[in-house]
Amino acid sequence: MSALTTPGFAFAVTATSGNARAGVLTTPHGAVPTPTFMPVGTQGSVKTLTPDDVAATGARIVLGNTYHLWLRPGPEVVAAAGGLHAFTRWGGAMLTDSGGYQAFSLAERRTQSDDGFVFRSHLDGSRRALSPEVAMQVQSQLGADIAMQLDVCPPGDAPIAEIEEACRVTSRWATRCVAAKDPRQALFGIVQGGTHPRIRRAHAEELGALPFDGLALGGFSVGEPIAQMHEVLDEVASALDPRRPRYLMGVGTPRDLVIAIGAGVDMFDCVLPTRNARNGQALTQTGRIVIKQARYKEDFSVLDPTCGCPTCTGGYSRAYLRHLYMAGEILVLRLFTVHNLHLYGRLVAEAREAIMGGSFEAFARAWLRS
Amino acid sequence: MSALTTPGFAFAVTATSGNARAGVLTTPHGAVPTPTFMPVGTQGSVKTLTPDDVAATGARIVLGNTYHLWLRPGPEVVAAAGGLHAFTRWGGAMLTDSGGYQAFSLAERRTQSDDGFVFRSHLDGSRRALSPEVAMQVQSQLGADIAMQLDVCPPGDAPIAEIEEACRVTSRWATRCVAAKDPRQALFGIVQGGTHPRIRRAHAEELGALPFDGLALGGFSVGEPIAQMHEVLDEVASALDPRRPRYLMGVGTPRDLVIAIGAGVDMFDCVLPTRNARNGQALTQTGRIVIKQARYKEDFSVLDPTCGCPTCTGGYSRAYLRHLYMAGEILVLRLFTVHNLHLYGRLVAEAREAIMGGSFEAFARAWLRS
Repeated sequence: MSALTTPGFAFAVTATSGNARAGVLTTPHGAVPTPTFMPVGTQGSVKTLTPDDVAATGARIVLGNTYHLWLRPGPEVVAAAGGLHAFTRWGGAMLTDSGGYQAFSLAERRTQSDDGFVFRSHLDGSRRALSPEVAMQVQSQLGADIAMQLDVCPPGDAPIAEIEEACRVTSRWATRCVAAKDPRQALFGIVQGGTHPRIRRAHAEELGALPFDGLALGGFSVGEPIAQMHEVLDEVASALDPRRPRYLMGVGTPRDLVIAIGAGVDMFDCVLPTRNARNGQALTQTGRIVIKQARYKEDFSVLDPTCGCPTCTGGYSRAYLRHLYMAGEILVLRLFTVHNLHLYGRLVAEAREAIMGGSFEAFARAWLRS
Repeated sequence: MSALTTPGFAFAVTATSGNARAGVLTTPHGAVPTPTFMPVGTQGSVKTLTPDDVAATGARIVLGNTYHLWLRPGPEVVAAAGGLHAFTRWGGAMLTDSGGYQAFSLAERRTQSDDGFVFRSHLDGSRRALSPEVAMQVQSQLGADIAMQLDVCPPGDAPIAEIEEACRVTSRWATRCVAAKDPRQALFGIVQGGTHPRIRRAHAEELGALPFDGLALGGFSVGEPIAQMHEVLDEVASALDPRRPRYLMGVGTPRDLVIAIGAGVDMFDCVLPTRNARNGQALTQTGRIVIKQARYKEDFSVLDPTCGCPTCTGGYSRAYLRHLYMAGEILVLRLFTVHNLHLYGRLVAEAREAIMGGSFEAFARAWLRS
């Protein structure tokens, strides 16, 4: 029986290989095979792509940013449309974050109290108060399948006292979010604790006692050294309740994903593949192609001949992609986004296959070498 | 037997209705039913769209701008790729203009002599000389199916002496282009003459005596009153050799197309549907939707419920499209471009059907009324 308490949701681990897990997360908008990568649809659009384009990269779940959608077009508009699925025409599963992280990083004149954040919109300066209850209310109006609790996410180099305080506040907000949650939405808790395994494990236990449908690791990839993140992940991910999906927030590179999957993480999101695409960078298993470089001017090969994405199978040459990029033709942003997300889709699909076959370690070694 | 002299090309009029014609232009890259509208792929890309997207709008031929591609990436790059078809992955027919019009309107410090134009690139200030022979050479390297002669295109309000001189120079350049043409490419001549039917008819006769594969009307929609253009078109289009395709350059609105098809024109190109799309304007048979207007904020209907384009059948609401536009999400530019080009594709397809059925006049009346 699934440990998830929200009706319509379930999670089952179907195979393990070391600490790595293959599973299925069932949602009202379809089953999501895990490990899975969630493309980021910040403002109700995975930038440059239609929902069909996104699904073709292998993605079965996308992430929306509550902060952005709250400020524009406003949750009442999304709710009037029938929710984010109807508004954006994405038919797969969807998760929204709580808005806390962007309120922290993007907004102006932010203050934090026991009751949440008060800030000024970066768009029009309007004053907004984001409490645990408001985070639940706005996410309910957006209507994604999975909502995230409001949390406090300290920077990677924060002193230990600040990290411990962040855990205490996050736990209090966790209880309030559970109480205020939309019964139709799954809710994930967010474990903090910086790079301190002891604090992380204690916080994981605290949040694990609440009826969350999944547990996330927040506060990674916020400035700490990458090697340290990898080390801590190894100690912490497997300490999260194994009956629930584990979600590593805002991470990362293909290398980060391989390591985190090996540590037992099931879900990821990151702007890296989509943001790099818009900066003219194509990711491949063997490295990065910075398309503006003059070496590609008459390079008539595709980005990656082993890649099955529409950009590579469509025969678009590096020379043509470079021309589009240099000429400011926005088609190239789509072609790169599709390519990069396809790489992430392939990575998690191949990792899953390796886990099912009990050969994740060999798979990981091969990926990390290339 | 086709009046076209370039191997691989043919044109047949299959039905008429009044002066309106339905036909088929055969090219090495497929048959193009006429009347036809050519989306503009300025820099080797119909902005925001893949070739598949373009074909899905009904387009069977696109236009590329020689001026832009000459300056960037350069015809030698395109030639090394195997020509514009291979470079851009467009499998249908393709036409390039001569570069003269942009050299005239975009370039800096332009001078004109009997030998062509000398100008400075708007990109890097480099000095370029565009003679009839260079126009043929560059277009040969680009390798479209159809090339255009170099011509002189005076503004709509030019004095009659300037228009007559433009015709004289255009005729001399016509002879030089015919002599310098790539034997694998079709070549169209360009009839000038402003809004003077007498000059137009005389110039049409002169150019009609040369072995052009088609005849274009240049120098329309360059500042003259629209009503005057419509009037002159009626007198002039039918004076062009009926055995060859007639191409009205750079025109126009759906209304212009209906009127020009009625006057006997077979081919069109215009940036209007694609440029308006990027300015957030969706065209419909009953008018223009300026999506930034607040009235669309909670308008959950599609752009046009009678439209079969992927944007309308995909269920994207005006409210969502407005949100994308206001939020700077470039997906909306593609969704609008697809919609607008689909309207043009439908317009020419329906006009063709009406001509085949002998009912073009009723069709035109219905369109012009709506």
